[in-house]
Amino acid sequence: MLSEFDLIAKYFTRPTPNATLGVGDDCALLTPTPGAQIAISSDMLVSGTHFFADAEPKLLGHKSLAVNLSDLAAMGAKPVAFTLALSLPKPDEPWLAAFADGLLALADLYRCELIGGDTTRGPLNICITVFGEIPAGKALRRDAAKAGDDIWVSGALGEARLGLAGMRKELALDAETLSAAVMRLHQPMPRVALGMALRGVANAAIDISDGLVGDLGHILARSGMGATLNVDALPVGPMLSEQPQEVQRRFALSGGDDYELCFTAPPSMRAAVLNAGNETGKAVTRVGSIEAAHGLRLTDASGHPLELHATSFDHFSAA
Amino acid sequence: MLSEFDLIAKYFTRPTPNATLGVGDDCALLTPTPGAQIAISSDMLVSGTHFFADAEPKLLGHKSLAVNLSDLAAMGAKPVAFTLALSLPKPDEPWLAAFADGLLALADLYRCELIGGDTTRGPLNICITVFGEIPAGKALRRDAAKAGDDIWVSGALGEARLGLAGMRKELALDAETLSAAVMRLHQPMPRVALGMALRGVANAAIDISDGLVGDLGHILARSGMGATLNVDALPVGPMLSEQPQEVQRRFALSGGDDYELCFTAPPSMRAAVLNAGNETGKAVTRVGSIEAAHGLRLTDASGHPLELHATSFDHFSAA
Repeated sequence: MLSEFDLIAKYFTRPTPNATLGVGDDCALLTPTPGAQIAISSDMLVSGTHFFADAEPKLLGHKSLAVNLSDLAAMGAKPVAFTLALSLPKPDEPWLAAFADGLLALADLYRCELIGGDTTRGPLNICITVFGEIPAGKALRRDAAKAGDDIWVSGALGEARLGLAGMRKELALDAETLSAAVMRLHQPMPRVALGMALRGVANAAIDISDGLVGDLGHILARSGMGATLNVDALPVGPMLSEQPQEVQRRFALSGGDDYELCFTAPPSMRAAVLNAGNETGKAVTRVGSIEAAHGLRLTDASGHPLELHATSFDHFSAA
Repeated sequence: MLSEFDLIAKYFTRPTPNATLGVGDDCALLTPTPGAQIAISSDMLVSGTHFFADAEPKLLGHKSLAVNLSDLAAMGAKPVAFTLALSLPKPDEPWLAAFADGLLALADLYRCELIGGDTTRGPLNICITVFGEIPAGKALRRDAAKAGDDIWVSGALGEARLGLAGMRKELALDAETLSAAVMRLHQPMPRVALGMALRGVANAAIDISDGLVGDLGHILARSGMGATLNVDALPVGPMLSEQPQEVQRRFALSGGDDYELCFTAPPSMRAAVLNAGNETGKAVTRVGSIEAAHGLRLTDASGHPLELHATSFDHFSAA
């Protein structure tokens, strides 16, 4: 049986050109770019809570890093490095090889280096902490939305939730739709390039992990603002658009796991926002406005108020 | 029942004067001191592997951060901040209050700020990632031991192992000794001040978490060196010195969890090492020499070779 140290060496030791010192010492060492701030995010994914015990390890490796890179994207930070702490019931080599494959393929795409971590025995648990850089003062913060800002979202909403509904058999989906929607759920792509392009353009930003209503709610709470969302403006992709309107609205408003960005920008920045979307190949859609009056109001395209039933997903309350 | 967000707010939201942005956004933001490198270490502690499920939460909070601060100490880095990812079977408020109490008391002692993290439902798992600063090029690395260096250790060795032996009833200890030794096991104090004082004095360093033989072995492997240890020189405190010589040697050589420092320094630095110990109130003891010949050799005080039976603790092989 491979020991802890052998396992780390075999699957997770990699060249680390960004880092001054990588895996193998008490600490990793990063030398920050002069003038840069370090953005740090940590997420823990637990078997039975965030994924099924038999989840495909390659997809799990991808998603574990993707959710953290998405937090960097939401700040406008450039990925630099990450640490991986992994608890495993047993040192299962095929599982580890596939997990490392999915994890490191995404890491390579963003030149985000694995610089350290921990491997131990225990119930399956994946904790990644990611480090990015951003020029001082340029971070897109949750607390920076201003009254009058437009609210924008990237990509299409609700597709990961559609995948979940298909897996749970809440909805009957054809095989092709099911497969595509499940990939949105299992293999989210962090909007890193868009986040970086929004530096100096957007005021506030967040990634949509728990659902638009809940995540926009964090921007509103931290900024001391309210908002109105035009529910008919929410970008819904071809897959979800075949579902009834009620399902479309519910999934787009409160479906989690899309890992699109929700951000606010002053109306004077509309052209700049569209340009950031064009340059990074991401659709961006204006879906509402930040207002000084607290609370979140929903309307249809004609401005008629709609009732808000959707609530955000919460790991402790949901089970 | 408190939600995930309520729990974080109640127990883990704190003022963060070191950080530009702390808990509550997608990422925390650190503004590095110009010229500093960032030292990063991540450790995962799992119920049933690293501690008993009924472990006292206040001590567990202390130890979870202490083991990470010990990694900073071993690099000579100054603690700045940390993230906490916590998986809990249920949102148990008395447990969380006690855990936060132990964790944050130690954090306050080193002005090491909780700047972010994650809270989720699952088997009890504590993953802390800690950040320190060190002037560029001054880190005490495992790969920097030189032939002819003295080998030093801080404090007394084997006391945490004595505590474990008492708890497991391998040894019969009187109540006072048992209590003191168990505190060494449950409440290690990271040697942060000593590590910082050894900048520019020591060549290589590591913290003793898995036992002296195993941890010194990491320095030897990374430095491409061998060593001779004088077993009779190993510092053994009053508690362990009451045990038979065989137990003293075995616990001092291979007992883990002491979180003392093992470091190497050229003989020309002996006065500087003793001075670093004096200034930080930590005993430092010279216990051997780094040699070009690979392998670890043990001798008694008169230089007679001893056989090496001790092996390092390893989480996967040990169970």
